Amino acid sequence: MPSLFSNISQPAIHVDPDEQIELRARAAGEHRATALAHPNIAFIKYWGNTDHLQRLPANPSLSMNLADLYTVTTVAFEAALTEDLLIINGTSVTGPGLARVTTSLDLIRTEASLNLAARVESESNFPVGSGIASSAAAFAALSVAGAAAAGLALSEAALSRLARRGSGSACRSVPAGYCQWLTGDDQTSVAASLAGADHWDLRDLVVIVSQEHKSVGSTGGHQIADTSSLQPARVAGAESRLAACRQALLARDLAAMGPVIEEDTIIMHAVMMSGHPPLYYWHPATMALIQATQQWRQEGLPVYFTIDAGPNVHLICEAQHAPAVEAAARRIPGVQNVLTSRAGGPARLIEF
Amino acid sequence: MPSLFSNISQPAIHVDPDEQIELRARAAGEHRATALAHPNIAFIKYWGNTDHLQRLPANPSLSMNLADLYTVTTVAFEAALTEDLLIINGTSVTGPGLARVTTSLDLIRTEASLNLAARVESESNFPVGSGIASSAAAFAALSVAGAAAAGLALSEAALSRLARRGSGSACRSVPAGYCQWLTGDDQTSVAASLAGADHWDLRDLVVIVSQEHKSVGSTGGHQIADTSSLQPARVAGAESRLAACRQALLARDLAAMGPVIEEDTIIMHAVMMSGHPPLYYWHPATMALIQATQQWRQEGLPVYFTIDAGPNVHLICEAQHAPAVEAAARRIPGVQNVLTSRAGGPARLIEF
Repeated sequence: MPSLFSNISQPAIHVDPDEQIELRARAAGEHRATALAHPNIAFIKYWGNTDHLQRLPANPSLSMNLADLYTVTTVAFEAALTEDLLIINGTSVTGPGLARVTTSLDLIRTEASLNLAARVESESNFPVGSGIASSAAAFAALSVAGAAAAGLALSEAALSRLARRGSGSACRSVPAGYCQWLTGDDQTSVAASLAGADHWDLRDLVVIVSQEHKSVGSTGGHQIADTSSLQPARVAGAESRLAACRQALLARDLAAMGPVIEEDTIIMHAVMMSGHPPLYYWHPATMALIQATQQWRQEGLPVYFTIDAGPNVHLICEAQHAPAVEAAARRIPGVQNVLTSRAGGPARLIEF
Repeated sequence: MPSLFSNISQPAIHVDPDEQIELRARAAGEHRATALAHPNIAFIKYWGNTDHLQRLPANPSLSMNLADLYTVTTVAFEAALTEDLLIINGTSVTGPGLARVTTSLDLIRTEASLNLAARVESESNFPVGSGIASSAAAFAALSVAGAAAAGLALSEAALSRLARRGSGSACRSVPAGYCQWLTGDDQTSVAASLAGADHWDLRDLVVIVSQEHKSVGSTGGHQIADTSSLQPARVAGAESRLAACRQALLARDLAAMGPVIEEDTIIMHAVMMSGHPPLYYWHPATMALIQATQQWRQEGLPVYFTIDAGPNVHLICEAQHAPAVEAAARRIPGVQNVLTSRAGGPARLIEF
């Protein structure tokens, strides 16, 4: 089959970030839709649930969608299928990966009273399993495409909820730009946009130090968050860190936001490293980048780090400093690549 | 002047670790004494005070003296001097370093009703300022030598208190072997031996990844411990970690003790990295050693890490595994040297 990317403009930077999510049901007879969604980078992290099945988060979080990274997913409900099929980047996936997609499709099928298996084809332009929140983009795209293919006209909040049930942070990839995900129950714990992608031209420089698939994924990690003696303090402080981050974001004040996002990252990784069993996601080059970021700021370059559940480091800066930050990052031993992204739009249906 | 080491056996491993602390006052007319003290490696860390001036710790801690590393200090109260003199490793020290020694000497002079300035000469056989607790050995030796030179016959507890006033963890270098330092007031917060050095033939392999003097020393670090939102959780959990560590130590059960000391290390560094300002002591090679330690255990080598306020990593194992651990550590990129030490005896007067 041709690449799913062959039909969309490259890179996604050219897709209008303010494009409305098309919530119209597809032609009923077709049962097929394609959606594009971006991963997001959390400035205030999600780590740990109050309900693992419903993926209700222990604390609120805040993130930025990444325009230049994306997943494109086509969902087709077909009468000829006897069971769901999942193809990721051209490879058929079975086992737990397929089961997780089927669980999301079941929510859609129940809502739509639809009794058809689906073919799901998904492609991403970024490495999966390396702390770039690949599951966030994947489940946001799956939810938007799946709902449309099933003929459901869902609100952004309902799509965000659906995405959350597949992968918690996926709910933040449904609305546009800079998003906040609040705690709540299964209906109310959804993400909403705080500001569109054009509010502030921040750049995320994703510094790749490893493309290995991590040994413990986020879902497993969330389930052991409570085994750390530091998790209660992390959760208790998240609200005030989020408030400080949100205020700085709305004021476009990186000098105020940066220290908060670095602290929030450290606290999440402290919980990971002090759990039972401990999760050590950092590599030597991760530590080199943490140290270097402090040094670069002392030298006058305004840049801050954040790190998701993996070894790669996200360097956050304003657009005008991105070239200098990228050059500096590429000089650090162990850095394999740097992917730069603007703030991104919402998950959305695309023609395919 | 000849090296202070010229008069003691090399290495200190040959000094009998069960030697009694000689508390006899020196001949009154002489006002001069020399003491040897070992640094110690904490298994349960000291970080943060309830009283900075008196160095009363926020939590109890537990450590092992390091026989093969030592500081030898001579204190001579001399009528000819108009002010205290401090010579460390052959170099005259003034400013804050001298002032801190004078503060300790003042406690001794007050206790002894002595009104003489002192010449203090100190030498160590290990790099200072690299997280090997150089100040612990220094202030333990200073206290034992200074008290004897002033003609004071102090108990071990009183010497431990005196050392604590100079540098908190120095109180743990006064008793022998494996020591516990409890919280309390200025009189009661002292260290005592849980077990002598011959209780368990553990080895500490100090893996040197940097010999640079750290930019923020322990005294400054203790003063900002309370700025981390994680410090209350660290302090609240220290008592139970110490109880678990003590029980495993007394049972010589490294498989039980190891995970506790790794967790305690992570939690202390989490407090450091999440403080205001954050303190990032780890280097890339530090992270490599943390990761490698997990790997080595999976491969059957029973070894655990602990890290003080610096980048160097202490690998703790039983004697029979020390050669394999050292060989493995030396293969990690960035490792400069490995110093191996047995459990050590108390701070003690030596002939000089």
